[in-house]
Amino acid sequence: MATNRFELTREYLDNLKTGIQNQDEMLVKQLTNELHPADIAEIFDELDIEEARFVYLHLDPDKGADLLIELEEDVRERFLSFLTSAEIASVFIDNMDSDDAADIIAELPEAKQDEVLSHIRDVEQAGDIVDLLSYDEDTAGGLMATELIAVQDDWTVSTCLDEIRKQAEEVDEIFFVYVVNASGVLKGTLPLKKLLLANVKTLVKNIYDTSVISVKTDTDSEEVASIMEKYDLVALPVVDSIGRLKGRITIDDVVDVIKEEAEKDYQMISGISGDVEASDSIFQLTKARIPWLFIGLIGGVLGALVIGGFEEQIKMFPEVAFFITLITAMGGNAGIQSSSIIVQGLANKSLGFDSTGRKLFKEISIALLNGTILSTLLFAYNLLMHHSMALTVSVSLALISIIVFASLFGTFVPLALNRLKIDPAVATGPFITTTNDVIGLFVYFMISRFFYLQFI
Amino acid sequence: MATNRFELTREYLDNLKTGIQNQDEMLVKQLTNELHPADIAEIFDELDIEEARFVYLHLDPDKGADLLIELEEDVRERFLSFLTSAEIASVFIDNMDSDDAADIIAELPEAKQDEVLSHIRDVEQAGDIVDLLSYDEDTAGGLMATELIAVQDDWTVSTCLDEIRKQAEEVDEIFFVYVVNASGVLKGTLPLKKLLLANVKTLVKNIYDTSVISVKTDTDSEEVASIMEKYDLVALPVVDSIGRLKGRITIDDVVDVIKEEAEKDYQMISGISGDVEASDSIFQLTKARIPWLFIGLIGGVLGALVIGGFEEQIKMFPEVAFFITLITAMGGNAGIQSSSIIVQGLANKSLGFDSTGRKLFKEISIALLNGTILSTLLFAYNLLMHHSMALTVSVSLALISIIVFASLFGTFVPLALNRLKIDPAVATGPFITTTNDVIGLFVYFMISRFFYLQFI
Repeated sequence: MATNRFELTREYLDNLKTGIQNQDEMLVKQLTNELHPADIAEIFDELDIEEARFVYLHLDPDKGADLLIELEEDVRERFLSFLTSAEIASVFIDNMDSDDAADIIAELPEAKQDEVLSHIRDVEQAGDIVDLLSYDEDTAGGLMATELIAVQDDWTVSTCLDEIRKQAEEVDEIFFVYVVNASGVLKGTLPLKKLLLANVKTLVKNIYDTSVISVKTDTDSEEVASIMEKYDLVALPVVDSIGRLKGRITIDDVVDVIKEEAEKDYQMISGISGDVEASDSIFQLTKARIPWLFIGLIGGVLGALVIGGFEEQIKMFPEVAFFITLITAMGGNAGIQSSSIIVQGLANKSLGFDSTGRKLFKEISIALLNGTILSTLLFAYNLLMHHSMALTVSVSLALISIIVFASLFGTFVPLALNRLKIDPAVATGPFITTTNDVIGLFVYFMISRFFYLQFI
Repeated sequence: MATNRFELTREYLDNLKTGIQNQDEMLVKQLTNELHPADIAEIFDELDIEEARFVYLHLDPDKGADLLIELEEDVRERFLSFLTSAEIASVFIDNMDSDDAADIIAELPEAKQDEVLSHIRDVEQAGDIVDLLSYDEDTAGGLMATELIAVQDDWTVSTCLDEIRKQAEEVDEIFFVYVVNASGVLKGTLPLKKLLLANVKTLVKNIYDTSVISVKTDTDSEEVASIMEKYDLVALPVVDSIGRLKGRITIDDVVDVIKEEAEKDYQMISGISGDVEASDSIFQLTKARIPWLFIGLIGGVLGALVIGGFEEQIKMFPEVAFFITLITAMGGNAGIQSSSIIVQGLANKSLGFDSTGRKLFKEISIALLNGTILSTLLFAYNLLMHHSMALTVSVSLALISIIVFASLFGTFVPLALNRLKIDPAVATGPFITTTNDVIGLFVYFMISRFFYLQFI
């Protein structure tokens, strides 16, 4: 029967923990035997290191490699420190694709890396891993695996099939058969379909598909993700600077890049630095959150200095203070809206060809439209509340001004950061809100001072 | 030579537009001929509808179907309204996978849907599309295509190869060969590798892989995405309630779901409703932004009412007003941090097994830690500035209180919404900030009133 997916329940976990406590090998094996490595990795998050070790030691050895790949980085790191270099080399690396092996070795301390590499029995595999380790992890070279199926353009279909059978031993999923020339330069792909349908004597060069999208080893991983996404690719070949086929990137590695990218932007806008999760420790979570709160505190103190500059005015007309929150909150909201649309547009490359000038013009239009509608509403409210004309006019005028300013600032800053090759997402979140607060307060008090002098 | 990817430049676009203006068919064909449909779709975003139409009418007909799939929904909608039902049926649908065809037909007006269906020549294909149209678009049934390769478990490898050759005509990429029994119930998969390596007389039932993860047609699409992501799948079979194989979902469809999900949460936290992009019209962008600004306005007015309630206090001690922004901004920041961590945890299912009580306890600890550090800094600052002891104590105490309150509120609200089956992401963004502002102001003024009475 078709296995279905596993749902981790409290009951299952209690059962497993009891089994581990009683050193009940049979029960533990039985509970973990049928599970996918990704499920076991999920369970590991809930176990302490000794419990996890017990489970691990009683796993089917084949599953060890896959489990290790599925573990989160911090869990894996603790784990590997429990194993000798020889164990790492023999148990895991032999059963792994080169890209995963290289990723895991790269996480080890420098000294242990060489030890592990020296224990790998298959010299060719060790060589591949060493090659992969030389690429930056945020490039196509760092994402690719060397396992792939390649055939030469001057072979016949029959030779191909024989070669594919040989090569297939090492490759988990075939996806594409790549066609190279005698020097190893990528020429195109041979769809399995064509291979199955062709006569065995046909030459590859007569049937292969010449249109193939490839990237260079030094292509940025975000660029790789956006290419695979745009062209709906499940695998993407990687070539060196003279076009020789070096490896292939599969979509599952890229899904992780896409997710991480989105999470990074999300955490940036919400004022959290570093990759943290709700299940991390109190200390880690505090560390990720306090820097942004500290920026907020500085902003608040600057705001207090601005308001303090208008102390006399507040003493005479305390109602001016009523709308402080309204002005700062609206500036913050409008600024975040503008900057997040730009940040998303930059990430998706959907900004189009408008010049910065045109983008700013568009933002002014939107801001004026929103600002006018909201200021009119606020004007009506203040009239109804019988607030003074000076206050009524000041608040509405300050509201339009701050919405326009915050929108422009929120548009301009991420565009400028992007041009300076700084991640534009830092422009969202507490930084932009804080700046808007300070500017907004100043504008509001200046406007109200002017109108109070006019009307009174 | 291996084609590489196309980069849309201002120069290319000017060239193309000139060609269209001059009705220069040769130039337009030459400029678009070598492009991937995804690239042409990108170009379409920069053309007006008449220009796009000219390009489209001079495209290789095969490319029309793919281009249509790649177009953004709103562009496609305008486009299809230019074509007759017969044109839609003959030009596109015949060249499309069933899932894409169903998606596009579903976007048409009701009356046109039936017309288009009646024009599809292949009755079997029309039937598949009608079946697919019956599934909710946010379920596995709505994502799946009916094109797949299936073999029966009692066949020999040789029969399989013959059948696969026949079926492969209709399937773009093979990925997996699914194994079913005589009733069509999914039993497992047959890796191409095994098929290539096996003796032609071997029976499928002796070599196929019985562990296959599948979903039901009514499985939610977000669930589908998280399964494919977790288990690193490139294709996922879909079965009906009695286990019969109905279709397969490929990873490229799911990448779109993942992206949309992340973008929705991002827009929610930044106070933008609806799926908008920087390149949308001023009116669309205003419409997406004003609802949240309006909520902010209401919050600001409520804030003004709260501050107004303490008018006498402000008149006597205007320095109390200095820290209004600091208190509200910090409450907002702390609240967004907490809620976004919970929202992300719920989306990734990485919240673990802690009870709501334990999560709130953890948040209190983090908030107390952050609050104490920041309040101490602020206390020192106020002492240095020679502010009154009443103000110094009030501000620091209010700061701790609001950080703790906002963190708890930011944790509790998304968890509660999630339990009520409402998207927890609505708890981020302007809604939570606004509530925190109002509560924060009230707490701050109450505390300062108390201390001013004590110290003076």
